[in-house]
Amino acid sequence: MSEFAIPQSEFEARLAATREAMAAQGLDLLLAFSTESEPAHVRYYADYWPSFETAAVLISVDGPAALLIGPESRTYATARTRIGRVIQLMDFRESSQPDYPGSRLPTWRDIAAEFRPRRVGIAGWHMFPHTILTALREAVGAAVSVVPADAVVRAVSMRKSANELRCLREAARLSEIGFRAVLEGIRPGLTECQLVGLATGAMLAAGAEATGYPIWCCSGPNSAQAISRPSLRPVQTGEVIHFSIGAKVAGYSASIGRPVVLGHCPDELRRFLQVGLDAETMTIDLMRAGTPAASVAQRVHDVIRSKGYGDAILYGPAHGCGQMECEYPFLETSSTYTLEEAMAFMVDIFLSRAGQGFRWEDGIVVRNGPAEELSSFGRRLNILEV
Amino acid sequence: MSEFAIPQSEFEARLAATREAMAAQGLDLLLAFSTESEPAHVRYYADYWPSFETAAVLISVDGPAALLIGPESRTYATARTRIGRVIQLMDFRESSQPDYPGSRLPTWRDIAAEFRPRRVGIAGWHMFPHTILTALREAVGAAVSVVPADAVVRAVSMRKSANELRCLREAARLSEIGFRAVLEGIRPGLTECQLVGLATGAMLAAGAEATGYPIWCCSGPNSAQAISRPSLRPVQTGEVIHFSIGAKVAGYSASIGRPVVLGHCPDELRRFLQVGLDAETMTIDLMRAGTPAASVAQRVHDVIRSKGYGDAILYGPAHGCGQMECEYPFLETSSTYTLEEAMAFMVDIFLSRAGQGFRWEDGIVVRNGPAEELSSFGRRLNILEV
Repeated sequence: MSEFAIPQSEFEARLAATREAMAAQGLDLLLAFSTESEPAHVRYYADYWPSFETAAVLISVDGPAALLIGPESRTYATARTRIGRVIQLMDFRESSQPDYPGSRLPTWRDIAAEFRPRRVGIAGWHMFPHTILTALREAVGAAVSVVPADAVVRAVSMRKSANELRCLREAARLSEIGFRAVLEGIRPGLTECQLVGLATGAMLAAGAEATGYPIWCCSGPNSAQAISRPSLRPVQTGEVIHFSIGAKVAGYSASIGRPVVLGHCPDELRRFLQVGLDAETMTIDLMRAGTPAASVAQRVHDVIRSKGYGDAILYGPAHGCGQMECEYPFLETSSTYTLEEAMAFMVDIFLSRAGQGFRWEDGIVVRNGPAEELSSFGRRLNILEV
Repeated sequence: MSEFAIPQSEFEARLAATREAMAAQGLDLLLAFSTESEPAHVRYYADYWPSFETAAVLISVDGPAALLIGPESRTYATARTRIGRVIQLMDFRESSQPDYPGSRLPTWRDIAAEFRPRRVGIAGWHMFPHTILTALREAVGAAVSVVPADAVVRAVSMRKSANELRCLREAARLSEIGFRAVLEGIRPGLTECQLVGLATGAMLAAGAEATGYPIWCCSGPNSAQAISRPSLRPVQTGEVIHFSIGAKVAGYSASIGRPVVLGHCPDELRRFLQVGLDAETMTIDLMRAGTPAASVAQRVHDVIRSKGYGDAILYGPAHGCGQMECEYPFLETSSTYTLEEAMAFMVDIFLSRAGQGFRWEDGIVVRNGPAEELSSFGRRLNILEV
């Protein structure tokens, strides 16, 4: 097991804290759902991380917990789970929907009969499949409420433990290694996908368990894409080439965002990049325990506007991070919470205008005073000679 | 645009064929849903491939089509889509659920008012979120049926076109390059994750747009995992180390599965590996147009049983492939269809017993006669000197 693995005692503490939060909400059963691309809930409670199939963790407020998986994942889940009991359900099978002739798996009725819930909460409510909710509701009966419960998990997971922060620091360190490989290998003519390959190879070689998300490079006309995937476009001199690169360590995902220019950087682009870099520095400086989140967003956006780039703002300037590189809460002008010690964020300045954009991004941990910065490598105007 | 990009005319033909299938089912509106890890439906119709957010394609039986995306993906989706119209909906936002203060996006009511459907089909039914279905049903009204419609898309996409097969051939060629990099770089002490990094780096360097799925290596006690993700376990001599490696090209995903042994291979393990390899060869030989799918599965499983390894069978021996590395239909003893020219499959023999397992996997295209094999590199007992 990796030196960064979260200890078993912490998984048990998570269950205990979640049961308290469930009791406060009058829930006697929680179902925390995950998919291949949204693994956070199940990994948080069970350290299991579905692929192809989906999964959930079932937590009884005063009884046992179980990991629910699909028909093909028993050996994989059993090797990874931190929750002793594993139950296989056909509803968690992969999207190609095999029959598995001859298999005899438990059903939601078996689960309802054992746990006899009165009020069931669902975490992952906005991605929870209609078909599974229907089967669950039929099994528990019309007298039982099934309600959204993401807030229960968020209350427990939003402040990060010392072990979680160790994972995030390592994920950020490996993300820097990914960007370093890009700086060392980039040249005009390499495609966005090839550059992503350089970063991915370097992060996995250095100890990452995976990328933290589907990382990307976007260049030239693609640079205006706030969310992207790399293409086969060859990068060129004199254009913005920006990178969102992140590693995953023991389930925790970091990211660094960096624009790069090869060769000559036009003055106007240099000014634009500097506005973003200054906004990132300012955001990091403002994010201190006790500060209302909305005030940070307001002040950063005011400064960007005062420099004449208000139209280039899409969102931000930060969002939570942890198991998902981007997790609740966002830090926005509409935010209603106050920053607290040990909350982890990605400071994330994305600006785009007239078909050209870039992202500056680094992880921080909120402290009573200046934030702890998880990464800083290459946080400068990377204008490279070719 | 890549030489493997599907031509625009083919996207239009897909819409036309889908409208015919919709009419036959009495559907006047189809919503084909996708997520970051299940991108097939949206990529099939729009060439767009969501990340972080979800997405759908809306197809009117006698009117326009539209790509539905979330709040942050406009520039990305606009650059990729083959469907001119892009509509942003808050329901397709990312799981961290930002507010995007100030944004004014259309709603399901706007869509209902424009398209005025009487009967709506959903493709991706088993992953379709309850919250979106609820919002859609409220918008269209109780008199409008909303029904499962995966069968509509499957009927159109199951036989592959010449352009799709070109992509699958290239994806398989790049998958072989990934496995070649493993054979060249593997040595005791490298972790499963590092070996995955070697394959990923090589495939992206050679032209892949991504891995075809979250590829893995699993070794020693992990080898019994049918679905897996790589771990930080160092591989060792004298154990099974198996690889599921696949590249994606223009949306199409292939895979090759290969066990490797470093150093001495115990006789019993060699026999077990050979049973799997022979089963793969036999499956490829049996999969010809006109053959009932179930008979292939039955005959292959009979032979595996006759050799004394019946308890090692989990599923298979093949499944559809295309945009998803594993897509409908599976080839099982319960299958009710007959193999047809131009259907593409992954022949996929996974066997495990007593905590030890492996996969042999290669893509094939069904033909009137022997199948076209998409990959064959390294399809032998890879017992390597160290």
